[in-house]
Parts: sequence; structure tokens; C-alpha cells
Amino acid sequence: MTETKKAVVLLSGGLDSATVLAMAQAEGYHCHTLSFDYGQRHRAELDAAARLAASARVAAHKVITLDMDGIGGSALTDAAIDVPETLQQGIPITYVPARNTVFLSLALGWAEVLEATDIFIGVNAVDYSGYPDCRPAFIDAFEHVANLATRAGVEGSGFRIRAPLQDMSKAQIIEAGTRLGVDYSLTVSCYQADSRGLACGLCDSCRLRAAGFAAASIADPTLYAKT
Amino acid sequence: MTETKKAVVLLSGGLDSATVLAMAQAEGYHCHTLSFDYGQRHRAELDAAARLAASARVAAHKVITLDMDGIGGSALTDAAIDVPETLQQGIPITYVPARNTVFLSLALGWAEVLEATDIFIGVNAVDYSGYPDCRPAFIDAFEHVANLATRAGVEGSGFRIRAPLQDMSKAQIIEAGTRLGVDYSLTVSCYQADSRGLACGLCDSCRLRAAGFAAASIADPTLYAKT
Repeated sequence: MTETKKAVVLLSGGLDSATVLAMAQAEGYHCHTLSFDYGQRHRAELDAAARLAASARVAAHKVITLDMDGIGGSALTDAAIDVPETLQQGIPITYVPARNTVFLSLALGWAEVLEATDIFIGVNAVDYSGYPDCRPAFIDAFEHVANLATRAGVEGSGFRIRAPLQDMSKAQIIEAGTRLGVDYSLTVSCYQADSRGLACGLCDSCRLRAAGFAAASIADPTLYAKT
Repeated sequence: MTETKKAVVLLSGGLDSATVLAMAQAEGYHCHTLSFDYGQRHRAELDAAARLAASARVAAHKVITLDMDGIGGSALTDAAIDVPETLQQGIPITYVPARNTVFLSLALGWAEVLEATDIFIGVNAVDYSGYPDCRPAFIDAFEHVANLATRAGVEGSGFRIRAPLQDMSKAQIIEAGTRLGVDYSLTVSCYQADSRGLACGLCDSCRLRAAGFAAASIADPTLYAKT
């Protein structure tokens, strides 16, 4: 009997997590994708995640609603703080408190119920220069927590937290995804995409994405609001 | 200038977390209490948490809604599984997947925004015989994650995860809380309390609680549905 390998894949609707999903599927995992509705300013990201999940024919796609809005403290969820349109030094103010810890925790709960062994997350080198919860040491520490926290960790074979983009540049990610057939026109990276999913072209995330396509010498399929 | 010491206290509405709140206040912390609405079968627990927070005059009380119901896998949130009425061996089926990991993650997010340094959680010796995420090794591992995951951990003084009940028996917890003036009639421990907060007297949690009062030789103020 062939065992079914199951994974939970955190799917934001952006370029990175779309690539991770394609990588997990290429490894033969039955993927269960998880998105979060945590008071983002726009729904375009969640719409993109649902499109990507459908396009990839995942085993299941789930959206968990979280009122992180009430916690405040980030431009991504707090409408009173403007999204910066120039590249920032240090930890960006678009940082959401403990976001990856919260997302991985909920992914862990679902993985345990599904008897999935692997949780995939799209953190990468470009991000961990700014966000503390994108660094390899954080991922390793969370994997340790996952294996102490759960019945499957204690009694079963345990969990692996997989961050396959960890050491890749944006250009390398785009090259890898393109080889796997990812349709990046389905993804939304912009911090302030409009209701149709059109990107601003000005925020940090848009700039990093555009630079990645340029460095990979791959035509950028991103749909921009301003031409 | 005297610095304000801030803490986030996970408050379930049960006996243990009510005691932890009193301990944190006795140490001089300005306490911000956090409860979760995660599809529990009854609201009595959340009502009890709100009563306790008001009674203790906390700095703020927050309820975060989580649809862990959709994840399934536990008698506490899945109406299709009966709550067992005899003491269980091993990890009980009332286990909620990754619960303490999820709760601590959200507490961490709030703590970071508040600039709180300590997060208090009421895990204890009686629980960690069954629940993997109540063990000291889990708490230590989560503290490590917290300090890698966050801006405050990286740039600031870091977080401490405080589990003051860790090595206490139920009787010792009740004795400590009674010395600090905790009114245990405000708390609900029962896994299947009715809408008025009356306890069944039959589930694991009721049995452990009643045995604790008996062992402490303190009159049990619990209100039971069946007399």
C-alpha cells in the first residue's frame, strides 16, 4: 500500500506561498492549504489564495478568521497607519505581531487532525532581513515547539516545518516556480492591492517582486493599477 | 519614575487561571486578560472569565474569536464526540489540537503591542500528565520561540512565559488562591457546564477540582447542576 503523504501549506495568495505549494505538490504531498482572514485591508489576497488552491486542485482549502485587528500595531491591519511607499530599514512597520507564530500554530492544529507530517511556509531570505519570524532560527525553534506540543509529536512520527524558500532570492523563487508551472498572474503580493487585485507598484512588496522578475529575466505578469 | 510592569494573562474562566491572575497581580503586574471563543460547547466559561476580569479590575480584558471548530478533532469543540465521564488514561480525547500553542501565540502578539514582558498561563502538574502542551519542556520551548519571533524579543528585553502553577497540585493551587482572596464560586471548570455555569460533577475536570478542594480541606463553593 502506498501511504498518502499529507501536508498543510500556508497560502497567502502571494508569489512565495504559491511557489511553495507547487514545490510541495512536486514532492508528492496531498496539500491542504490554509489562509487567514485577519483584518487585512483588502480581500484581494484571500481571493488570490482561493484561486491558487482551486487551480492547483488541493485536497482542501481552509480560511481561518482571526480578529488580530483588535490587537493592532501594524500598517497591514490598522487603517490609521499608512503603508510606506519607500523601502524601509530594520523591522518594517508592516510587521504583524507574532504573525508567523500564530499562523504556524493554527496550521499545526489542523496538521495534527489531518495526520499531516509536514507544514510548508513561504518565508525567505528577502523577508528575514526585516521580519524576525522569517529567520531560520525561528523556524527551527517552532519545529521544536510543534513536536513537544502535540499528541503526534509525542506519540507519533512528529512534524517538520518546511521552509523551502529559506535561502532563495526572489529571482530564484520565480525561476523555480516558473519551472513548476506556477501562474504568477494568479498571485497578489501588493500590500495595498485594490479590490480587483491590481497592485500599487510602489510598496516594498511590489518593488521586491518587480525586481525579482527583472533579475530572473522573466516577463512580469503582475497586473498594476497604475501604468 | 516607577515603571509599569505589564503582563498578559490567559484567562479561561476556570480555577487555575483565576489563581494565576491573582498571583500576577500580587507580583505587581498590570494584567491584561485574554480569553478565547473557539467553539466551546457552552458560553459559561467565557462568562466566568469576564466576571473574574471585572472582579479583579484588570487593565483590559479581551476575547479573541477563533474558528478552531472547523479544525475539529476534540470532544471540547466537536458536538459529535461525547465528553467522557470517567477519568481517562493517556492523552484525553478532550485535547484540542495545538491549543496552548495557539493561545500563547495570540497572547504573544498582544504582549508585543502592549510592551508587556510576561505572559502568564495556568498549566499545572495535574494537566501535564495528559496534555502534551502543559509540560515544562513545552513552556520553555515556546519561550524560546517568543524571543526569536518578535521585535521585542530581538530588539528589546524579551518575553518570559510564566507558569506559576507548574509544580503545584490542585490542592496547593486552591490553598494559594484562597490566601490571595480568589472567589472560586466565580470560576467554572466543568467541561460541560450548563448555560448558568452549573457544573456536571462527573467529567474529569469536575472530579479533579472536587478532589482538590477535599485535599485542601477547603469548602467547595462549586455550583453543581445535580445535587
